[in-house]
This record gives sequence, C-alpha cells and structure tokens, in this order.
Amino acid sequence: MAAAAGVSKSLVSLVLQGSAQVGEARRRAVLDAVADLGYRPTRPAQVAPALRSRTVGVVLNDLRNPWFVDLLEGLTTALDGGGSTPLLSDSLTMQRVGRSSVRALVDCGVDGLVVVGTTSEEAAVLAVAADLPVVLAGTTEPRLPLGDVVVNDDVAGARSATEHLIELGHRRLAHLRGPGDIGALRLQGFREAVDHGGLTAGHRVDAGGRTEESGYAGARRLLTGSPRPTAILAFNDIAAVGAMSAAADLGIAVPEELSVVGYDDTSLAQIRHLSLTSVDNGNFAVGAQAGRFLVERIADPSLPARRFIVPTRLVVRGTTASPRT
Amino acid sequence: MAAAAGVSKSLVSLVLQGSAQVGEARRRAVLDAVADLGYRPTRPAQVAPALRSRTVGVVLNDLRNPWFVDLLEGLTTALDGGGSTPLLSDSLTMQRVGRSSVRALVDCGVDGLVVVGTTSEEAAVLAVAADLPVVLAGTTEPRLPLGDVVVNDDVAGARSATEHLIELGHRRLAHLRGPGDIGALRLQGFREAVDHGGLTAGHRVDAGGRTEESGYAGARRLLTGSPRPTAILAFNDIAAVGAMSAAADLGIAVPEELSVVGYDDTSLAQIRHLSLTSVDNGNFAVGAQAGRFLVERIADPSLPARRFIVPTRLVVRGTTASPRT
Repeated sequence: MAAAAGVSKSLVSLVLQGSAQVGEARRRAVLDAVADLGYRPTRPAQVAPALRSRTVGVVLNDLRNPWFVDLLEGLTTALDGGGSTPLLSDSLTMQRVGRSSVRALVDCGVDGLVVVGTTSEEAAVLAVAADLPVVLAGTTEPRLPLGDVVVNDDVAGARSATEHLIELGHRRLAHLRGPGDIGALRLQGFREAVDHGGLTAGHRVDAGGRTEESGYAGARRLLTGSPRPTAILAFNDIAAVGAMSAAADLGIAVPEELSVVGYDDTSLAQIRHLSLTSVDNGNFAVGAQAGRFLVERIADPSLPARRFIVPTRLVVRGTTASPRT
Repeated sequence: MAAAAGVSKSLVSLVLQGSAQVGEARRRAVLDAVADLGYRPTRPAQVAPALRSRTVGVVLNDLRNPWFVDLLEGLTTALDGGGSTPLLSDSLTMQRVGRSSVRALVDCGVDGLVVVGTTSEEAAVLAVAADLPVVLAGTTEPRLPLGDVVVNDDVAGARSATEHLIELGHRRLAHLRGPGDIGALRLQGFREAVDHGGLTAGHRVDAGGRTEESGYAGARRLLTGSPRPTAILAFNDIAAVGAMSAAADLGIAVPEELSVVGYDDTSLAQIRHLSLTSVDNGNFAVGAQAGRFLVERIADPSLPARRFIVPTRLVVRGTTASPRT
C-alpha cells in the first residue's frame, strides 16, 4: 500500500497515528491510498442483535460552533426510532488531552459510529471503519469503502447564496473559502454563480477557515485590499460573524456598505442581534437520514456505500442588501 | 415519604417519572422530600477497579448555549488524569424524543455521572444517585445526600458585575433573573450591590430566563416600562444577547443608552461583533475540580458530600459604559 501511495511505510504509520508532522498533501495521498487499497474490509461480521449494545457513537468536531445541533436532533430521532441511543464525544476537547473520540466511543462498545462534520480524526475513522458500521453526516471525508454519506447540496447552497448577492446588484464578490471537500464544493457553487453572472474578473477568493478568528483575518485581508468587495460569502456562520466584526473594526457598515452571507443557518445566525443571512443546510434531515442509514447498516454491515444529498434553502435576513450606488 | 412532603403517593410517582403535568412548587416539595428522606442511600457498594468501565457520563443541558465548553475541557483533563473517559449526552435533545440522558448513560455502564448546569432531569439524577457516584458542576440542584457540588461564586460574580455598573454611574439598574438556585444566587448578588449602593428604590427585577427568547422578552418589558433602566444585568450571556436585540429593535443604543452585562463569559460574549461584558465563572476550574471529585468518589463512594466554590472575574468589554447625563 505504501508503494501504491508512492510514500514510505513510516509515513503511512505516522499518518495513521494522526501525526501533526505530516503536511496536508502527503497526508491526503496516504489516506486516499488507504481508502483505495489498504483497509478495504472483508465483509464485516454481523453482530447478533442480542449482543448489540443499542448505543451509537457520535463524533462531534467542535462544540463551540453550534452548527450541528439540528443535525443531532434529527439523528437522535431516527436512532430512537431504530431502538438505539446516541453517545456523544467531541474531538477537539478529547484531542486537547491527547485522546481520540473515535477510540473512546469504540472502546465503549458502540454498535456503530456517526461522524458529524469535517473531522480531525480521519485516520482513526478509517481504521475502525473496517470493523464497525460508519456513516458520515455533513462531511464526505474520509472516503470509506463501505460507509454511507449524508450531506446537504453544498454546490447548490453556495450557488443560490451567490445568486442572491448578484440579484441585489453586487458586482465585486468575495468568498472566504473553508477547508476540505466541503470547502471545495461551496467554492465551486460560488464560482458557478459568478461565472454565470459574467463576474469572473471581479471576484476574489481568500482562505476564511471555519472559525471566527480565521473569518475575521480573511475578511480583513479582503476589506483592506483594492478594489474592495461589496459582498462576502463565508464558508460558515461563525466565519461570517468574524467577517462582520472585521467590517465593524474597519468602520464598514453591514449591510449598507458590505453584504455578508453565512452558511449552516445556525442558532448564531438566528440571533436577532446578528440577523445573518445564511444557507439552511437541512441539517435535521441530514441527521435523520444518517440515523436511518446507520440503523440499516448495523443490521446488515455488507450494504453497499450510499450517498444522500439534502436540498438547501437560502434564509435572507439583515446582513444582505443592495450595494450603495 | 409522601406524607413527609405533604403530598400523595401518585404525585411522588409522577414527579419521579419526570412528568410535565406537575407544577414547579409541588415538584420542588416532592424533590426536597426525596432528598431528605426517600432516597438516602445506604453506603453504596464500591465497584472493584477491575470491573469499572473507565467511562463517566456527562449530562449536558442545552447544546445551543455554549457556556459549558470550558467546563467540559477542565472536566476531560481531570478525568483523563484519573484514567477515565467522558461520554456526553444532551438532555434537551434526548427529551425531544422522550428519552432521558441520565438513563442512557447509566444503561451504558458508566462508573459515575457529572451533571453540568441546571438540569431538566432532577428526578432521574436523584434516582440514580442512590447507586452511582454523582457530582454536580455549575449547579447545586438536585440536592444529593452523597454528591459533590462545584460551582462558581454566583453571589460574588453578580455583585461585582452590578458594582461595575454602579461605578460607571448607573442609578436605574435592572436584573433579568434566571431559574433555580443559581438564579436565586445571582439575584442575591445583584441585590446586595444595589442595597450597598443605596439604590434599592430604583432597581427592577424581571424574569429573563436562560434563553435568547426569554432574555429578549424580559428586556422588552423592562425597556418599555417607565422609568427606563440604563443598565441590565442578565442571568447569562445568551439572555444578555436577547436583551441587546430588544434594545436594537427599540432603537436604544448599546452602550450609549443602555449597558448590558452577561454571565458565563461564553464564546458568544467573546465574539468581537457582540463584545459583551460578562462574568468569567472560572468554568475550566469548575470542570477540573468536578472531575477530581468524581474520580475520588468512584474510588470511595462513601466520601461525605463536598462543596467547592470557584472565584469569578468580571471581563469588561464593549457593552458597558457610563450613562448619558
């Protein structure tokens, strides 16, 4: 397998241990090779129903960003319908003490795992997926030979948000892109709308990350550049809130001088004082479908990998308006 | 026991099942009687170390309010130091499908339970506390014969926040009070500062709850009354953000025409765009101490009940200023 990835055995070992010493490109090459070759399971043994724990592990990625709450409600509802109970663990909190949420949940004897959102534990997920039913919700990574994926339509969601800005009259649009596959899909949606609107020359893209800090820093770079964009689509709500703070610090009024759009329609976007235009990613439906998939996969671990895409809906609030002429 | 509480057996039964049909006062009477008389455990059996699961259940109260994140980090660190792993469950999410987080965690075989914040599962906590080590973190309820309590100094925290407002020159102060024991303690701190400042006649108190919605509604009542307060101390950050939204909707500028103070110093308060003055409740320390208590109590369930109080610190940000003269 190391040969297939064109890398050394020790690099594979480092990546599978989740080492921070390995750069993104090499890490990605190894994980793709693992998915293609290394860990493809023989058909997993079905656990007899009487021996199941009736619990399911849920791996969260960051409790500070409340984007996952509706997803978790949908998931809990579907799991309950299937006679299972979710147990939660947060990767960020566990990794601060050098532990893995995936391992903690697996050691606990869960019947299956739901990975919620872009995870920092890709290698651990890949390793357990050979022996345990896994469903990804709100993320497409890591690629699993026998895992189901439930995501919202990120391309369409980002495209509709960008079209909203173009319809308002914006001509200098910017995107604060996020990490991973989901970041690439939302960027693609933004680009499709920009190209379709004939605004290819005028748009800008900068790294916005998925935290308030990174959104603030990215927006600051965009807003101090020239020409200044009149509208920003951020990767998610919390980065969009960072962008709003950057605008406030620079004396740029939202929405009069700058429109800002988030993504995920979290409780943060819905706070009246923020009133952030955002893309509702249908997270309750994402979670509910992920729960149904996992219940089915626990009953029959040899099911082929499935993918389900939930439609999105733009929610227009107070942070978007026509640009000043 | 029903006789001791002055209520019927069927009422006790309803309360212990967590029925929503029972009013607050009667529920409280029953739970107090349960704590005093009914469920006082004989010295719980110590589980042999080899038979322990090395997992601890953590009962969260509402994932939408990120106040507990630092507490969870402190808790995870201390549990890890004691060789235990936290498993999380959220009461609000579980109760939406008619389930109990407490039961789910106990059924999973955890060695002990940490109840984080004011819980909606008091009866279930009381019921399991007879057989399982329990520690309360950030809440004093329900009263447990053999459970430890770790809280911040709510009286001192609310008093220091109120003194800050008085020092800024505010004379018409209002408090949006929250539920339960913690609500009563923060109200006491507010009242002590108001009385000490000779402002007893000018202050007002209204129910503010612990959500954005309830904070919004409470602040709206205060701000449309006469005379209008120039400063509001809310029960927590998210209710304070609701109060900021109410002010914005009424065209009242924060902090020029209204100062607002939250409590908990959550990630919400720290968002630059909100920049909310708040009380840092030392939550990392609260969580760490709760973890240490639980590790000790699992080793020796007969330890007497202990209480640990963590000092608070006022964090002044952009929502407080001197009133317009």
